Amino acid sequence: MKYNNDTILKLFESALLQFQTPEEPKLLYDPIVYSMSGGGKRLRPVLLLLTVDAFGGDVEEALPAGMAVEVFHNFTLLHDDIMDNASMRRGMPSVYAKWGGNVALLSGDTMLIIAYKYLARVPSTQLHRILNIFSDMATEVCEGQQYDMDFESVDMVFAEDYIKMIEYKTSALLSGSAMIGATLAGASEDDIRKMYRFATELGLAFQLQDDMLDSYGDEKLGKKIGGDILEGKQTYLMVQAMSRASEEEREVLRTTHRRTDISDDEKIAIVKALYDKFDVRHSTEQQIKIRFERALAVLDTLSIAGERTSQLEEFARNLMGRKK
Amino acid sequence: MKYNNDTILKLFESALLQFQTPEEPKLLYDPIVYSMSGGGKRLRPVLLLLTVDAFGGDVEEALPAGMAVEVFHNFTLLHDDIMDNASMRRGMPSVYAKWGGNVALLSGDTMLIIAYKYLARVPSTQLHRILNIFSDMATEVCEGQQYDMDFESVDMVFAEDYIKMIEYKTSALLSGSAMIGATLAGASEDDIRKMYRFATELGLAFQLQDDMLDSYGDEKLGKKIGGDILEGKQTYLMVQAMSRASEEEREVLRTTHRRTDISDDEKIAIVKALYDKFDVRHSTEQQIKIRFERALAVLDTLSIAGERTSQLEEFARNLMGRKK
Repeated sequence: MKYNNDTILKLFESALLQFQTPEEPKLLYDPIVYSMSGGGKRLRPVLLLLTVDAFGGDVEEALPAGMAVEVFHNFTLLHDDIMDNASMRRGMPSVYAKWGGNVALLSGDTMLIIAYKYLARVPSTQLHRILNIFSDMATEVCEGQQYDMDFESVDMVFAEDYIKMIEYKTSALLSGSAMIGATLAGASEDDIRKMYRFATELGLAFQLQDDMLDSYGDEKLGKKIGGDILEGKQTYLMVQAMSRASEEEREVLRTTHRRTDISDDEKIAIVKALYDKFDVRHSTEQQIKIRFERALAVLDTLSIAGERTSQLEEFARNLMGRKK
Repeated sequence: MKYNNDTILKLFESALLQFQTPEEPKLLYDPIVYSMSGGGKRLRPVLLLLTVDAFGGDVEEALPAGMAVEVFHNFTLLHDDIMDNASMRRGMPSVYAKWGGNVALLSGDTMLIIAYKYLARVPSTQLHRILNIFSDMATEVCEGQQYDMDFESVDMVFAEDYIKMIEYKTSALLSGSAMIGATLAGASEDDIRKMYRFATELGLAFQLQDDMLDSYGDEKLGKKIGGDILEGKQTYLMVQAMSRASEEEREVLRTTHRRTDISDDEKIAIVKALYDKFDVRHSTEQQIKIRFERALAVLDTLSIAGERTSQLEEFARNLMGRKK
């Protein structure tokens, strides 16, 4: 173990400073540089590199694979912002808002190709395997995005379908990163599978917590309450509430965000009153707890010595904003 | 040599019948199946496979690489149709028109990933090399598309910039296919480079001819005259005419397609009168002839026996609609 969460992030950030594109055509490459330098927590490459380190692999050699997952993640943001008509990203104008849809589309395409270019730099003996993990992961992310869009035209989403959607849309990129890291470090098939499970459960816990904080977060922490409610987005809270509501209450849950006769605060209050009635906060917290504990429990079953997993555990706690 | 142009197309078409995607999510995969079964001449896989055969490689083993370039080509069509707001493709509604921009975007992304999945099936020893050729080719296609869009907001396009654009946007996918084919067959570096030049020149000849037929084609052959003129598209004819026109004539060339006081036929007549005045037909035909002859000449310099290149020559003649 040569790194911890902080030093591995620093290592990756310094590798990111080397990120370069051709200068021309400017409208293709400027948005890519803008996107890659827009900050973010670099969760996926950090998880990938921490996994490499935990299994005794060569972290520096794994940097291109880390770049691949980070560039891929940013590609999805460019295209998601087109589909969601989103003008802001990380507190800055989105590429879509700044340059328009065509630029975001084509620059995004190019980023997906650049991700594969980085991937091609993994050792030849592992390339085939890594490529397949990466492409399967990438496909799941697209499928997850489509399921999410499908939900917009569905009367009622079932909890298991919702969980599957976020497993694809959010967890897949984390679990793919963990598997790539373990594979690069030469971990056993069993350990690779376990790292997949660790990151899948962690990703679910993370997304469910994100859902919950939208309604029950602390506004003092800068989190604006009710954004998902106002957008009429499916969340685990909404899915739970719908499953317990009467037909009349379902209609309220479905339509309140579209009302024009009441204020945003009133809309949020109406929906949250139903959330409270069905105590969806509690059942969501239960789910988060179960998923998070499962993730941590997987770490104990890895074939490597316990102290080697400490930074992965810290990664998980940081992600969930939890001290030990 | 086991194949000719016809039998290799049949072989590829039968491989294409095996093309399958998951069933769900339907809005992600139905457009992909629709796009892949929409016909087209399969030029890129045919060139790839003919090249494999010419160099004595295993054509059947190269089928996944052929699928990769065909799926990639169809991915570019889905995204180009969004950017061009194009409702028709190969005489059918485009995916963009049929399902909307978000579906065309996400299904297109998935096709790019599927292309890489096929590519991952080339023999491990060659994977690294093939992957790099493919990604470089894919990047050039995106750059070409951006240069083409850049031209829309430029007062005057220079001939060399126009040629560079079509080299990227049209030739790159042909030259990449030829290089992949030659590489798979174990051709020498020198022969790979020559196949790149063959396909690059052929692609330029093909695109320039396409430009010319828009103004000087035979309407009896089903080609509607003047489409490029009415869209105000840059073509080699336009670029040539602009370079020779007076400032007043340039303004006519720039603005006629936007006029609302005259009919389409009148617009076409005005622009073509200037094309005729500067005899751009002749200079374009010259360019086509030079590029086509250069392409054929490259074939004679390959290290393989002359009769092995006969199907590549026929491919070139077919593409240009020329009998021997």
